[in-house]
Amino acid sequence: MVIFVDMDEVIADTYGAHIEIYNKEFNGNLTSESCMGNEVWKMVPEAHQESVRKHATRRGFFKDLKVIPNSQKVLQKLSKKYEVYIASAAMQFPNSLEEKSDWLDEYFPFIPWQNRILCGHKHVLKGDILIDDRSYNLQHFEGRGIQFTSPHNVNTKGFERANSWLEIGEKLL
Amino acid sequence: MVIFVDMDEVIADTYGAHIEIYNKEFNGNLTSESCMGNEVWKMVPEAHQESVRKHATRRGFFKDLKVIPNSQKVLQKLSKKYEVYIASAAMQFPNSLEEKSDWLDEYFPFIPWQNRILCGHKHVLKGDILIDDRSYNLQHFEGRGIQFTSPHNVNTKGFERANSWLEIGEKLL
Repeated sequence: MVIFVDMDEVIADTYGAHIEIYNKEFNGNLTSESCMGNEVWKMVPEAHQESVRKHATRRGFFKDLKVIPNSQKVLQKLSKKYEVYIASAAMQFPNSLEEKSDWLDEYFPFIPWQNRILCGHKHVLKGDILIDDRSYNLQHFEGRGIQFTSPHNVNTKGFERANSWLEIGEKLL
Repeated sequence: MVIFVDMDEVIADTYGAHIEIYNKEFNGNLTSESCMGNEVWKMVPEAHQESVRKHATRRGFFKDLKVIPNSQKVLQKLSKKYEVYIASAAMQFPNSLEEKSDWLDEYFPFIPWQNRILCGHKHVLKGDILIDDRSYNLQHFEGRGIQFTSPHNVNTKGFERANSWLEIGEKLL
């Protein structure tokens, strides 16, 4: 069985990083709880939105992301049982590419380079399961799509959902 | 129709770059003609092999590659007719990732980030045609595999072959 796992907001806490940077630079008091159901950049005053939307183009942004709780231990177990691939739509941000590779080396060394994919569209991936936070990726995937809960997608309907890596473990291990 | 196109030795002249660097640094006289049927690192004295094998880990190596003749004009036409994706097994060389993105921006700007894939194994790609120089990529591809001739694969059998981009054009346009 082939399982594809997205990076941002599935194993890497991109949303949390946006909030942290925004609060620091604009003396803000955003929390992920206060952002539920929205993209983070929509939750700040219009004058600050462009700044937030550009976080992902900064050198270092993707290197410093925190790991989503329990993703390491569950993915390590899944990797022993199935063919696990990391599949991140990273090509939009060329600055992210090497940082994502380094980040995986640091936190997910048990997933070798052969099983890492930095791409754009995910509908050309052939496999059984895709774990992703974005509906547009899940929609066009031929296999079983599992939407991983992130603040921005809490109100999205239509997909099987997992709220945590422990839930993924219960479903797939 | 979905077409995947490899980078190294298909649209980017990696083999030529290895020869050029080797000749310059070791005062050599390798030519691609003299290497036919072999990996380039096997064609140099044993004492130099490690150096050649490490070219691909150098910063700048992938940024300066020459474009394979006619690949731009044929791919531009193919892109208008089909869904064309660049698919490069680049994850082995993290230093190559951003350089490959920049190189594509420079020489293949008509292939957008959504259609670029940097990966490891290619057998998780779902599509109709794969144009690649490496047998191990073609072997595990579910669709039609076309082996693009490179000095190292001239004696390889078992795959449909294209010796040039003009031949690809004749086959697919």
